[in-house]
Amino acid sequence: MGEKYQALVERLKEIRNVDRAAAVLHWDQQVNMPRGGARGRAAQLATLSRIAHELLISDETARLIADAETEVGSADYDSVEASMLRVAKRDFRKSTCVPSSLVAELAEAETLAHEVWAEARAQDNFGKFLPALQRILDLKRREAEFRGYSEHPYDAFLDDYEPGMTASRVKKLFDAHKGELVSLVAAIKERGDGVSDALLRQTYDIDKQRAFGEQMVRAYGYDFERGRQDVAVHPFCITFSQGDVRITTRYNSDYLNPALFGTMHESGHAMYEQGVDPALEGTPLSRGTSLGVHESQSRLWENFVGRSRPFWTWAYPQLQSTFPDQLGGVDVETFYRAINRVAPSFVRVEADEATYNLHIMVRFEIELDLVTGAVPLEKLPQLWNEKFESYLGIVPPSDKLGVLQDVHWSSGLIGYFPTYAIGNLLTAQFYRQALAAHPFIPDEIAQGKFDTLREWMRANIYQHGRKFTADELTQRLTGEPVECSYFITYLQEKYRDIYG
Amino acid sequence: MGEKYQALVERLKEIRNVDRAAAVLHWDQQVNMPRGGARGRAAQLATLSRIAHELLISDETARLIADAETEVGSADYDSVEASMLRVAKRDFRKSTCVPSSLVAELAEAETLAHEVWAEARAQDNFGKFLPALQRILDLKRREAEFRGYSEHPYDAFLDDYEPGMTASRVKKLFDAHKGELVSLVAAIKERGDGVSDALLRQTYDIDKQRAFGEQMVRAYGYDFERGRQDVAVHPFCITFSQGDVRITTRYNSDYLNPALFGTMHESGHAMYEQGVDPALEGTPLSRGTSLGVHESQSRLWENFVGRSRPFWTWAYPQLQSTFPDQLGGVDVETFYRAINRVAPSFVRVEADEATYNLHIMVRFEIELDLVTGAVPLEKLPQLWNEKFESYLGIVPPSDKLGVLQDVHWSSGLIGYFPTYAIGNLLTAQFYRQALAAHPFIPDEIAQGKFDTLREWMRANIYQHGRKFTADELTQRLTGEPVECSYFITYLQEKYRDIYG
Repeated sequence: MGEKYQALVERLKEIRNVDRAAAVLHWDQQVNMPRGGARGRAAQLATLSRIAHELLISDETARLIADAETEVGSADYDSVEASMLRVAKRDFRKSTCVPSSLVAELAEAETLAHEVWAEARAQDNFGKFLPALQRILDLKRREAEFRGYSEHPYDAFLDDYEPGMTASRVKKLFDAHKGELVSLVAAIKERGDGVSDALLRQTYDIDKQRAFGEQMVRAYGYDFERGRQDVAVHPFCITFSQGDVRITTRYNSDYLNPALFGTMHESGHAMYEQGVDPALEGTPLSRGTSLGVHESQSRLWENFVGRSRPFWTWAYPQLQSTFPDQLGGVDVETFYRAINRVAPSFVRVEADEATYNLHIMVRFEIELDLVTGAVPLEKLPQLWNEKFESYLGIVPPSDKLGVLQDVHWSSGLIGYFPTYAIGNLLTAQFYRQALAAHPFIPDEIAQGKFDTLREWMRANIYQHGRKFTADELTQRLTGEPVECSYFITYLQEKYRDIYG
Repeated sequence: MGEKYQALVERLKEIRNVDRAAAVLHWDQQVNMPRGGARGRAAQLATLSRIAHELLISDETARLIADAETEVGSADYDSVEASMLRVAKRDFRKSTCVPSSLVAELAEAETLAHEVWAEARAQDNFGKFLPALQRILDLKRREAEFRGYSEHPYDAFLDDYEPGMTASRVKKLFDAHKGELVSLVAAIKERGDGVSDALLRQTYDIDKQRAFGEQMVRAYGYDFERGRQDVAVHPFCITFSQGDVRITTRYNSDYLNPALFGTMHESGHAMYEQGVDPALEGTPLSRGTSLGVHESQSRLWENFVGRSRPFWTWAYPQLQSTFPDQLGGVDVETFYRAINRVAPSFVRVEADEATYNLHIMVRFEIELDLVTGAVPLEKLPQLWNEKFESYLGIVPPSDKLGVLQDVHWSSGLIGYFPTYAIGNLLTAQFYRQALAAHPFIPDEIAQGKFDTLREWMRANIYQHGRKFTADELTQRLTGEPVECSYFITYLQEKYRDIYG
């Protein structure tokens, strides 16, 4: 490619550098920042956000895109150059419709709301969070109007995380497996509670939990020379460069699951980001293509691998020797059943595989109302609890375990939740393809070998970064769009085996 | 003030936000970043540095300054408005003479050189650092030519850290007390080694060291709600906002001094930054006025307070109960003498008060040659060792303990070292004034009360931020410019008492 294309890439890298600097500030805010730093940090993030936005929407960027187009011309659709131009045009189009002032207002409101939410959650006080949430929603509604949408304002946000997805497509996908999930959970409930997870709820030393979790994800292939793990209230994965992809987790000294499976989960996100083709580094193509595809990878390593029988054939003796007092007398089968116990619970991030998508359906339906303003905010806890009871059969005893549990709304992440459920569906779809290509993968996993699986994912998904959309990638890999039947089949087979 | 002044302030705050975002990235690089992150981080810092520089030197900023000038007009010299305009004009003038491309090249070279230096130091391999240092010096020489200077290119850099200071003023100040220092150190040497610090070189648990150090600086008045302490190879203090001023230290499990006095030292810097008038927050006035004045505060709390007899009257019983095995049988006088032992040593940050300025004189003279290129870089270790022997009477056994020990050159901080020595001189000058106003300060210190001293410093120094230059501040507080006799008197009295 010639100079014009290079000039565009340089510009895009410059913008990405500002975004990644902001990512460092976000990470620090959630991992390290003292309380007194909130106001200053909000101002810094607002400035960076405004600068990145203005650089992107500038006439100069428009001109660079137009110039590069004359060079890239009819380059192969799959080429880096054609892909770069497609993505640059899409990002430019999305950003130019929202005024910089609104972008800066949102960034500042979100930073402050995050602090308020953390306090409100700690104090179990939804009322404290309400004004900050109201402010976020007011700004997001204005954003949706600037963005434009054909059917529902929610589509404007969904498109950010899952390009091409719409509220009606999500609704159809959810309707297609909601009944099956409810039946499955009901059938398991009928079997009574033959599976106990009490053994997971003993005292587990936090330093040992951390060491074991890091040992597992290092074996998966998460590269600690190009990342690190820290503690945060709400676990996340964040990328500063291909050489610095960090994960966070939270530890519970009397429950083994959150940190262990949380670490595996975030390592899936991180391996995706670490696995992008180095030739794409620093450009807008160097990251996962959609949150749904991203989640397919976190769920792959957390559940399809990390909660599988072959995995624990290899890992369980190591866990036993790490916690001999707690697990010395527990056999692997009992442990396997414990970590796969199905039981409706309050906290999404700790939900089992069978109930998880039901948690998402609660949030999705509430978000549709939040966006249109169809429900007064003070009724939100009540609405949450009603829906929760109707889908999962239980009522949260506090807002801390209910409507206040997730960080997303305080961070302006409306339309984000459905991508978790889509991710679950895609995991089953992608894993089925990997197994078709390499049927011996489960045997390798039972020996602590993860290279074949990870390299298949890297070659078929990770390396492409954002070159292809989620729909394109799914169609290419599986011959069809995202589909729920494989996930349901996976769940039915797994739980038939466990619950009989 | 009117709209034009406000518009200027908004612009300056915006620039400061970018600088402070860069500060977060720098902090993270030294405290957290995995090795793989270096290249990406260098690119991010280069972008932020370029953006901040371009915002500052833009025609728009020039216009805002000119406009504000019509409003501020003949406002009182001491007013925030007049001070803001003075400082903005000075910063603008300094920055406009250096091209943005050179600023970005320097930022990137420094980030990479920092990584190389850390490795070279760990491996005791000066040759590994040489090309990176050469690159820095080439760029700095170009910078000096753009900056301009009347006598020596070194003046261009000095002026950054100690506005108004010149190489010839530093030389005069150093010459005026070099002989006295050499005599003092020689006189102490004559007394033989009657003071032992062996008790400080026992095994001290690092977690307990951290807890004790934090307890001391909390008592000083360092606010942990608006700061935090972490571990870094080279300790520093860094400000993200008045609400987030962080310090770092390094721990040595078999030597009590580095972390204990390092923490006190950095807390002095931090209290200065935390103590600026909140009305100045976010503007270019919200930080210490010069590195020398800054250092006067770190040395005040590290040495004049932290190594004083009154302080340990209060603190020693607490230290004894923290380390009963190590100190239970050591009386306070023996401890006091140990922490004030004078002995030429290799590492500047661990040097005693009597030899410290001699370490600086070695560096200052070498830097003058580095800037003019008068010495080939491969001779630097030899030159260092020769000067070290001639001033301090000892030869470093390795470059790790010699020329490679400091972070400064790898970070492009040429001209920075003299400010440490100036700081020592200013401490004695300022503390003398505080004692004149409140003679009972030592009695309060002996009771663990630090408010009178800290509040005197806050009212007379901290709160002003950059409103006044170091020369203005020193003249106002002491009636004369920076002066070395008070420091020499302080040292002579202190060591006459200890060494007889």
